[in-house]
Amino acid sequence: MKGIYYDGEKASFRDDLPMPVPGPEESLIRVKMAAVCSTDKEILKGYRPDFKGVMGHEFVGVVEQSPDPALIGKTVAGELNASCGNCIYCRTGRQKHCTYRRVLGMHRKDGCFAEYMTLDTSLLHQVPDGLPVEKAIYTEPLAAAFEIMTRMSFPPEKNIGVLGDGRLAYCVVQAFASRGRRVTVIGKHPEKLELFAPYADITLEREPEAYEILVEATGSPDGIRQALEMVRKQGTIILKSTFAGDVQLPLSLVAVNEITIAGSRCGPFEPALEALASGKAKFPELTVFAPEDYEQAFSYKGFKAGFVF
Amino acid sequence: MKGIYYDGEKASFRDDLPMPVPGPEESLIRVKMAAVCSTDKEILKGYRPDFKGVMGHEFVGVVEQSPDPALIGKTVAGELNASCGNCIYCRTGRQKHCTYRRVLGMHRKDGCFAEYMTLDTSLLHQVPDGLPVEKAIYTEPLAAAFEIMTRMSFPPEKNIGVLGDGRLAYCVVQAFASRGRRVTVIGKHPEKLELFAPYADITLEREPEAYEILVEATGSPDGIRQALEMVRKQGTIILKSTFAGDVQLPLSLVAVNEITIAGSRCGPFEPALEALASGKAKFPELTVFAPEDYEQAFSYKGFKAGFVF
Repeated sequence: MKGIYYDGEKASFRDDLPMPVPGPEESLIRVKMAAVCSTDKEILKGYRPDFKGVMGHEFVGVVEQSPDPALIGKTVAGELNASCGNCIYCRTGRQKHCTYRRVLGMHRKDGCFAEYMTLDTSLLHQVPDGLPVEKAIYTEPLAAAFEIMTRMSFPPEKNIGVLGDGRLAYCVVQAFASRGRRVTVIGKHPEKLELFAPYADITLEREPEAYEILVEATGSPDGIRQALEMVRKQGTIILKSTFAGDVQLPLSLVAVNEITIAGSRCGPFEPALEALASGKAKFPELTVFAPEDYEQAFSYKGFKAGFVF
Repeated sequence: MKGIYYDGEKASFRDDLPMPVPGPEESLIRVKMAAVCSTDKEILKGYRPDFKGVMGHEFVGVVEQSPDPALIGKTVAGELNASCGNCIYCRTGRQKHCTYRRVLGMHRKDGCFAEYMTLDTSLLHQVPDGLPVEKAIYTEPLAAAFEIMTRMSFPPEKNIGVLGDGRLAYCVVQAFASRGRRVTVIGKHPEKLELFAPYADITLEREPEAYEILVEATGSPDGIRQALEMVRKQGTIILKSTFAGDVQLPLSLVAVNEITIAGSRCGPFEPALEALASGKAKFPELTVFAPEDYEQAFSYKGFKAGFVF
């Protein structure tokens, strides 16, 4: 079959990949659409040195084989982290942090940039009728934005800032907007900020000590330093950016100003699917490439690139 | 009067300091005992370059003049931060973070290493009858340890580690012990750890991913790096250490492992006074120096040094 394969050093298009064989608890899925995430580009830079295999973790597909007969023929999205069920994290409701997890397209598990893929059946979520594939493809990144709402509350009197004007920030804004919460987006590219204008207040100004809650979604190592200056004392920074390497920080500020920094990653699929299906969360259309044109897709500068298989 | 004065470069003993004159909302206090905090030593290293004046912020004294007649003649301890009452922090219950605050012995306000001092009357807390001065002197650092309980809850199923075996860690352990909560202290000096043994489990081992909640109380810039390795995924690090300078951190771990880092500083005096008065919180005796011997006090290597005036 066709797919995009990472050999530990670089990506390549291949048309000779073996058909994946589902394990006893897995389903076989025909991939209809897959999307490129910044993490895929980080892998190309060496973010996952141990990984070799089919890339990709954002997908929508149709179930062809499954231990759950009700799923066969259904359109699904799916979670990334396949867990062991026995470790301390699995036993305490933190399956996505499983010590022995396999991660789709990242760690010990072939991904979704291929014609077919397999995934633990328990990780599949049926796409509601009427939600087209090109919208459902945003389920995973939107779910990651909803994660912050599972970790903390957002009292109405506390103003919320979102630092960044890229895709990560956009997902966060859509999660808040779909729940009726207006936030302020602090960006540095006027042309990118315009995309946010219908859903949030936008500004280029980095006002000091201005936000009670600040979501750091710049994707850059420098974001947290800026966030430490922009958050109120006793305020909260939600850290969404991931990147390789260390960051230098005036950490005493965190203690002296009693700031909380809360890291946040993958999240719940159901509220994301609901927000997309109801039209409360809105996304620009994905720009679709053929898998042969993977280099163009990985270097695409628009909102988001993807593949159709 | 006698006192220990910081001239912006070094400390000196002086016997010609002017008697302080209380403002309209302040009380005049005769200092009975004052204690040396690590912050005082940081000031000698240049931590507060703008400060000149009498040093010190931990004290017990007797009120000699006050706008509140009921306080005159009473023994008191007192909070550090005198606030403006009007800024965003004062108006939202965060007076200790007041933008225009004066801080005892640190910022725009003479401290307590002197025969007499003044302080906003609202910052004074009466020492309960029967609590001797040499125990009440621990009120401020113990209050700072109680602060972490005002910021978050500590569910019984979550194990708590305290990283560090110095005074900061000891205060944290006493705050938990006085509320019936047993914690594990992770130290590196067996002789220091012995002091904790009656109140906590003690260990020299830095077990990875072992603690759901980990209080970083090493006082060292390296503590947070260790804490990031020792805390569970989705766990919480409470950051108590303050020090000058930046720290280099693998910050992506915070996002990927969904760790929360919560900074914590000054805290409520009432639970600290109650725990000391009831005997639920226990401290070694302060080692007392004459103010003339301030250099010995600042370089003292035992549990805690102080002055009697």
